[in-house]
Amino acid sequence: MREQWAVLSEINVLSSLISTFMFDTITIIGVGLLGGSLGLALKRRGLSRRILGVGRRPESLDAARSLGTVDETFLDLEPAVREAGLVVVCTPAAGVTPCLDRIRDCLSPGAVVTDVASTKALICAHVRRTNWPRPLRFIGSHPMAGSEKFGPEHADPNLYEGAVTFVERAPDQAPDARDTVVALWQGVGSTVVDIDPAEHDDRVARTSHVPHIAAAALAQLAAGDEMGPFVGNGFRDTTRIAEGRPEIWRDICQTNAPAILEGLDQLESYLHQVRDAITRKNGRELEDFFEAGRCARGKVLGE
Amino acid sequence: MREQWAVLSEINVLSSLISTFMFDTITIIGVGLLGGSLGLALKRRGLSRRILGVGRRPESLDAARSLGTVDETFLDLEPAVREAGLVVVCTPAAGVTPCLDRIRDCLSPGAVVTDVASTKALICAHVRRTNWPRPLRFIGSHPMAGSEKFGPEHADPNLYEGAVTFVERAPDQAPDARDTVVALWQGVGSTVVDIDPAEHDDRVARTSHVPHIAAAALAQLAAGDEMGPFVGNGFRDTTRIAEGRPEIWRDICQTNAPAILEGLDQLESYLHQVRDAITRKNGRELEDFFEAGRCARGKVLGE
Repeated sequence: MREQWAVLSEINVLSSLISTFMFDTITIIGVGLLGGSLGLALKRRGLSRRILGVGRRPESLDAARSLGTVDETFLDLEPAVREAGLVVVCTPAAGVTPCLDRIRDCLSPGAVVTDVASTKALICAHVRRTNWPRPLRFIGSHPMAGSEKFGPEHADPNLYEGAVTFVERAPDQAPDARDTVVALWQGVGSTVVDIDPAEHDDRVARTSHVPHIAAAALAQLAAGDEMGPFVGNGFRDTTRIAEGRPEIWRDICQTNAPAILEGLDQLESYLHQVRDAITRKNGRELEDFFEAGRCARGKVLGE
Repeated sequence: MREQWAVLSEINVLSSLISTFMFDTITIIGVGLLGGSLGLALKRRGLSRRILGVGRRPESLDAARSLGTVDETFLDLEPAVREAGLVVVCTPAAGVTPCLDRIRDCLSPGAVVTDVASTKALICAHVRRTNWPRPLRFIGSHPMAGSEKFGPEHADPNLYEGAVTFVERAPDQAPDARDTVVALWQGVGSTVVDIDPAEHDDRVARTSHVPHIAAAALAQLAAGDEMGPFVGNGFRDTTRIAEGRPEIWRDICQTNAPAILEGLDQLESYLHQVRDAITRKNGRELEDFFEAGRCARGKVLGE
């Protein structure tokens, strides 16, 4: 099996040298913001000869095709996946592992698979637990690109330009498969950062997932009649990400539960610190808390 | 006393009709971002013949004078306040009531006093408890303008342009004093919204103060080594207000304690809701929570 892949992989490399395209056929599963933007980016840059899109709703597929984000569309996974040299799973996080289970045995020999989910540990552990052939040709990815907008109509060919894309690095991966995934993300303009899935999930819980939960909570805290004049840019910025698609965030919470629960605990302990300082009228502690917030932000942003 | 004021107030009105200036002498106590911007705005618009600035630090006063935010500067309150027809207290919130106590008996007859603190209930109750002469010529204000920057060097003549300024409305106020304060804020371009101090404080706790505490906590949650690549625009926006000046936010917490504590309780109960839903693997509840966040934000912003 390993040898067969190696040979096919060499054939792929040769054919890509002959063709003017970096990729021949890429299949994108899920043609929403992330999948659609990837299709557009690949087409605009002439990186793939053919792009197939898979979706569950005919309307989304029609939109994707008419917007030119993909060349051909499929409601069924199998025929769309069979011909692809590279498959990119762009479903919400909880949809990735069921999708991987379904495509695993219809892949063409040598095909490379990746995804775009914001959580990586569960997904990357799943392919190992379900005995995908080694060396692995599934390589987890997480492009830090997105927007509070969603759906094929918001697809943006520059979405990945300048973004960081995390790509799983592990000793059981096929090096050429990993190179393919790195080339994909670099090809659409992003900077690839190697990650260990568990470490990745812990960090994004703290920089993205818990902030998102807080933003959704803060938006609800302010809901009420006639709040309009009391709302400034601070509220607008702090809660912007609460506009995100609920299904995406539901899935993130469910696929990164331990790190998010730990982050929520820590957030709560910070809030208790403030509550205690207010109750004890301790101005020094309050000032220290806000100073720590300022410093932390500067450090995190490298400012 | 009341009659004396009424007469003087008429003289003021007459003199302002003769002069080309809306105001003769305005004293600004505190020449940082808010005070300095007010001075610049008044000067650029030719609204005041003379602007006096009071500060505690000679360097800030030198900066304010050389930047042209005020015409003359004073380290002592009394001489600066004695000649003013309008005094604007631009110190952080906890500094307002001690300042009011000190200036109360040096004010010229008919002088009007206002402030810019983000919390109003304590300050507005204080002038009543300390028996300022009635009808009151202190009228609390809160311009919803600001920035995470601070200090005289960031003074901006357009800071108040297009901003909402809350102005206390109560039956024991002198109508002409209130008109003066309204004219001040409208003169520098803001839209005046009448408020009851307690209601104001409850609302800004929910739209501004608790979000600020959350932003400072979220910044600390993300602090650690090599977080750089894991930080996206979401983190940047959600924590932007954590750059605010710690003393300002210490004072806000101390002068709006009951409303902030209530808001923190509510925030915590939202976070518990998410924690419970994650623990019980209840996807429906998670999705509902994020959907409620989206809807609430849209409603609050009137979108």
